Parts: sequence; C-alpha cells; structure tokens
Amino acid sequence: MTKEQLIEFISQQKTAFLASVNSEGYPVVRAMLAPRVIDGTDFYFSTNTSSSKVKQFTENCKACVYFYKRGRFKYQGATVTGTMSVCTDQETKNLIWRVGDTLFYRQGKTDPDYCVLKFTCQKAEYYCDFKIEKFEF
Amino acid sequence: MTKEQLIEFISQQKTAFLASVNSEGYPVVRAMLAPRVIDGTDFYFSTNTSSSKVKQFTENCKACVYFYKRGRFKYQGATVTGTMSVCTDQETKNLIWRVGDTLFYRQGKTDPDYCVLKFTCQKAEYYCDFKIEKFEF
Repeated sequence: MTKEQLIEFISQQKTAFLASVNSEGYPVVRAMLAPRVIDGTDFYFSTNTSSSKVKQFTENCKACVYFYKRGRFKYQGATVTGTMSVCTDQETKNLIWRVGDTLFYRQGKTDPDYCVLKFTCQKAEYYCDFKIEKFEF
Repeated sequence: MTKEQLIEFISQQKTAFLASVNSEGYPVVRAMLAPRVIDGTDFYFSTNTSSSKVKQFTENCKACVYFYKRGRFKYQGATVTGTMSVCTDQETKNLIWRVGDTLFYRQGKTDPDYCVLKFTCQKAEYYCDFKIEKFEF
C-alpha cells in the first residue's frame, strides 16, 4: 500500500474516531463525521468552538484519527497520529462550510461557535489481516 | 440514564475503540472486539502480549474506551476513561479464555503471547441527540 492508497482508503470512510489527550493526561475518543476536506495530508473537520475537544486541542495539539472498515471477511484499520490546529479564521471556516450547516450553527459561517479542526498527519499504521504497514509523512 | 443503563448500552456493542497514550505523548486509537467480560465497572479484553498497546499501557495506564451506535435517526456514544492493567497471571487469562482462541494463540491459554487487558472505569460521558450526560464511578 502506498501513502496515496492509504489516503484513498481514509477518504472512503464515513466516520472518523478522533482522540485528544485531556488536561489529566487521559486519552479521550469520540466519533466524528468524516473529514469535510482532505488536502494532501491535512484533514479538516467542523466542530463547535465550545466543545471539550477544542479546549483539549488548544492545550495539547497531539492527536489521533482512526478509520476502519469491517467487511465480511476482512478488517482494515488506519491509526493516524499527528497534530491538531484549532482554526477560527474566516478563510478556513469558509473552506469547509456547507449550506446545511446552519442547522448546527445558527449564525452561519461567521457563527463564533463554529470552528475548524485541521489535523496534519505525521505517522500512520494500517492494519489488514493481522499485518501492519507503517507510514511517515 | 443510570450507570447500570450505561453499562447495559456498552455491553450491547460489538466493537470497542481503545485509546492509549504512546511514549511521545500522542493518543493512539484502534478497534477491538467488545470486552469478553464486563464485571461491574471492569472490562476485560484479550490481546497479544507482544502488541504495541501492551507496551503503551505498561508504560502509561491511562486509557479510554469508546462505544457507539449509529441508528437511522439516533446517534449514541459513550466515552469512558480509566486505567488499564496488563494481566499476565494465569487466573485472569483463564477467566476470559474461549476455545476458539487457539486460532490466535497456538499454545492455548498458557501461551505467553496471550494476555488480558483489564480496564477499570473512572469517568464516562454519554452522548445522545446533542446532549451529554456525565458519570463518575
């Protein structure tokens, strides 16, 4: 598997599992919708500025995003570690905004409670059929 | 939702997403089969002694286990943080052993590459329909 194929696998998944490290040093996982935009090795997610993950990533940028696919006979998983930036600038907020988002952010793309999480890949491990492949970006 | 109902929700899920913190301070997520045994607020998983998660939990016991269920109209998620013990004693290994496990651990329940991860819940957050409930154990 090449890096391009790994990103292709990731871009096909509908759910991402995002982990931060909280102020007490515990990892914290939650499901997210798949990245809105994947640009090279940067993944962009939308979120609430007031969420606990924004607080955690502001204090500690170390992050993991996990993707998996369980087929009938095959299990594939990709564990990607890297850093997370909390982006509140309007340019980045415009980049991934979709019309339907007003359902969640009433004030639209300038809503102060709408912000963007930008994840930058550093390393990845891809698991398939008990084998592991490692990548560095 | 009571603590008992939260544990009931957890026990119904087939996949657990397990996070550790690696030696560089990054969270690391991977999917696991659901806990083999749930005893009160202790969850027991089987794993390979040689796996990277065993190494990570031996060095840093802080852990998170995440469970989720995505229905057609409803999304539920439970983020549970706590501590992970790596158990290599035969009594604990016997506790969660199943006959079919010889497929993965050729030497059977005494296989040195078979061990048990025992997770003890400390705190939990349950998400449903944009609401969060918090629990302490």
